[in-house]
Amino acid sequence: MPDGNLPLTDTHISLAHGNGGRFMRELIEAIFRRHLGAPDGERPLDTDADAVRLPDLDGPVYTTVDGFAVHPIEFPGGDIGSLAVHGTVNDLSVAGAIPRYLTLSAFLEEGLDVEVLDRVVASLARAADAAGVRVVAGDTKVVPRGHGGGIYFSVAGIGVGDPGLALGMDRIRPGDAILVSGPVGDHGTAVMLAREAFGLHGDVRSDCASVFPLAQTLSGINGIRFLRDPTRGGLATVMHEIARATGLRVELEEGAIPVNDAVRSVCEILGYDPLYLACEGRCVAVVAGEIAAHALARWQDLDEGRHAALIGHVGAGRAEVILNTPIGGQRRLEELEDDPLPRIC
Amino acid sequence: MPDGNLPLTDTHISLAHGNGGRFMRELIEAIFRRHLGAPDGERPLDTDADAVRLPDLDGPVYTTVDGFAVHPIEFPGGDIGSLAVHGTVNDLSVAGAIPRYLTLSAFLEEGLDVEVLDRVVASLARAADAAGVRVVAGDTKVVPRGHGGGIYFSVAGIGVGDPGLALGMDRIRPGDAILVSGPVGDHGTAVMLAREAFGLHGDVRSDCASVFPLAQTLSGINGIRFLRDPTRGGLATVMHEIARATGLRVELEEGAIPVNDAVRSVCEILGYDPLYLACEGRCVAVVAGEIAAHALARWQDLDEGRHAALIGHVGAGRAEVILNTPIGGQRRLEELEDDPLPRIC
Repeated sequence: MPDGNLPLTDTHISLAHGNGGRFMRELIEAIFRRHLGAPDGERPLDTDADAVRLPDLDGPVYTTVDGFAVHPIEFPGGDIGSLAVHGTVNDLSVAGAIPRYLTLSAFLEEGLDVEVLDRVVASLARAADAAGVRVVAGDTKVVPRGHGGGIYFSVAGIGVGDPGLALGMDRIRPGDAILVSGPVGDHGTAVMLAREAFGLHGDVRSDCASVFPLAQTLSGINGIRFLRDPTRGGLATVMHEIARATGLRVELEEGAIPVNDAVRSVCEILGYDPLYLACEGRCVAVVAGEIAAHALARWQDLDEGRHAALIGHVGAGRAEVILNTPIGGQRRLEELEDDPLPRIC
Repeated sequence: MPDGNLPLTDTHISLAHGNGGRFMRELIEAIFRRHLGAPDGERPLDTDADAVRLPDLDGPVYTTVDGFAVHPIEFPGGDIGSLAVHGTVNDLSVAGAIPRYLTLSAFLEEGLDVEVLDRVVASLARAADAAGVRVVAGDTKVVPRGHGGGIYFSVAGIGVGDPGLALGMDRIRPGDAILVSGPVGDHGTAVMLAREAFGLHGDVRSDCASVFPLAQTLSGINGIRFLRDPTRGGLATVMHEIARATGLRVELEEGAIPVNDAVRSVCEILGYDPLYLACEGRCVAVVAGEIAAHALARWQDLDEGRHAALIGHVGAGRAEVILNTPIGGQRRLEELEDDPLPRIC
C-alpha cells in the first residue's frame, strides 16, 4: 500500500492513540503492523502479544539498548527510523555479535503528523530488512503536547556472539594500531545543518548505516582487539574511553584522519571540531600493529570502508590523547565537556 | 551510600549530561552504575559496554518491550522506576516466560532534579532485585527543557519459557472461566489522585507489583489457557481483546469483580468506570471451567492473589463483552474510545 494512502482517518496523533483502546489499536494496525508485521513472516511483529518467543539462537546471546531523540526527525541521509535500527545494530556489531532481533518502544507527542510517523516507521522497516534484523515486539505511548519531541524511539537488540570476534578494551596493548572506517563528523554536521538554525545550507549527508559488514569482514583475523562506533562525542570520545580504560597513551595523526571537505568547512565557520561530532555509520578498530595493513585492506575492499584509514596507535605513556599535527606539533585532545549539539541521535 | 549523599556536584540535569563526554560519564557513574552495577555481580550493569553477553539461557528465549511515561513520576505505591520493572516483568510473566534480564533506556529532560532521578533508579534497582531480574544494559539521552516529561523509561525484557505454561488466545474455548487476581483500577486511580488536578485526596495506592508469582503458581496445571495483565484500558480492554481474537462472547458478573471501596468512591465522583482503569499488579486468567476452582484457590493462597475472584466466563455467542448486573440486567461493555487519563503508565 502506498504511503500516501494511509489506512487511518486521523491525520494527527491524539492522546486517545495511547490509551489502550480502539484508537490505539487502529494506529498500531495502520502503521506498526502494516510496516513491521507483513504476513509472509519476513517482518514478524505480532502486535497482539505481551512477549514473543524467539526462534532458537545458535550461540551466546548478546543484548543492548539505545534511545533516539534526534531533531529534526528527518535529515539528509536518514531519519529517526533508520537511525534507530543502525544505532542498535551497530552496538551489537562492535561488541562482536551478529544482530538478529529488535524491539521498538515509541513515545509519540500529541499533535504529531501521522504521515511523518508512517514515513519513519517505513524507513525503519527498510533499514531492518537491509541489516538482516527483525522487529519482534513493540510498545507505543502518547505524551501530551509539549511533553515530547515529536517522536522518541528506544530500540533494544538481541544478537548472537560471533566466535571469530573476541573483543574487549582489556585486549588493547601498546603498539596496537587504530583504524577508522571512513570520514568522521558527517552525521553531526548533517543534523546540525538540517535544523536551519545557523543560516547555513550544505550538501552534507549523514553517514547513518550499519557497521555490521565492517565488523564481519574482520571476523577470524587474529589480533582484532576492540571495535567501537564513534557516536555521541565523536572519535575524540572513543579515544578517551580507550585511554581511560587501558591507562595507555593514544596518539592520532591529524593529517591521516579522514574528514569530508564540506564537514571541514562547516566546522570552521561554526567553530566545531569534527573529531567531537557524531558518526552513525563509522567504526573504529584497535588492532595488533602487525595485522593493521591487512585489516585496513579488508575494510577498503568494502563500500562501507573504501575511505578507511590508519589514523594512530596506542603507546606506552600515561593515559592521555595526543594529536600529532601535520606540521610536526602535538596537542592534547581534551575530554568533551559542554554539549554543542543536543538531540543529535 | 545513602541517598542524599549523591556523588555528583550537579543538582539538575543539563544538556551536557547527554553528550557522551565527561558530564555524561559522571552522571552514569553516580546514578546508574551506583545503583545497578554493584561490584558483587548481583547487579551486573556494565556501563562501558556497547552490548553485553548474557549467561547461557536454559530454555526458549522470550522478549518484550514497554515504555513508561507516568506522571507524576512518583505516586503512592510506586514510581516510574518500580513501574518500569513491573510492567516489563509482567509482560514476560503473562506470556509464560520466567523474567531474567532487563535493559533500560532513559530520556531525561533538561532541568530534572538529580535527586528525583536518584530515587527512582534506586527504586528500580530494588524492584529488579525483588523480581529476580538483572539490568544488564542501558542508555541515557537528555532532551532540552520543554521536550520531555521529566523522565521517560523504556525497558526491554528477556526471559526463558516456562514449559509448564503453554498459553495463547487461540487456546480459549466456550465454557472457560475468567479469573482476576485482585481489585481493579487501583493504579489508575492512585496516579489520578496524585496529580492533585481534581481537588480530591484519598489513600488509594497503586497495585504496582510483579505478577510473576501469580503466573508461576499456575505452572503445570492442565487447562490454563491465557494470562494477561490489565494495564492501559483496564479489565474491559482485556475482555475486548479476548472477544475480538476468539470471536466468542465474554460475560462478566459485575457483582463478582473486586473493586476497592476508595476506588469506587473516586470513580463515582469523577464519572470514571473502574473497569477501564489501569492495574499494574493484577493478572487476568482464562482457564478451563473444570479447573477454575483449583486455579482460584492457588491464587488465593498467595499474598498477591488473596482477593482473587472468578468474575465471568467465555460463551459461544457472537464476539461482544456483556456485563451481568447484580439486579439481573445486562449491558454491553463498549471498547474504550477517548483517553481520560494520559501518562498513566
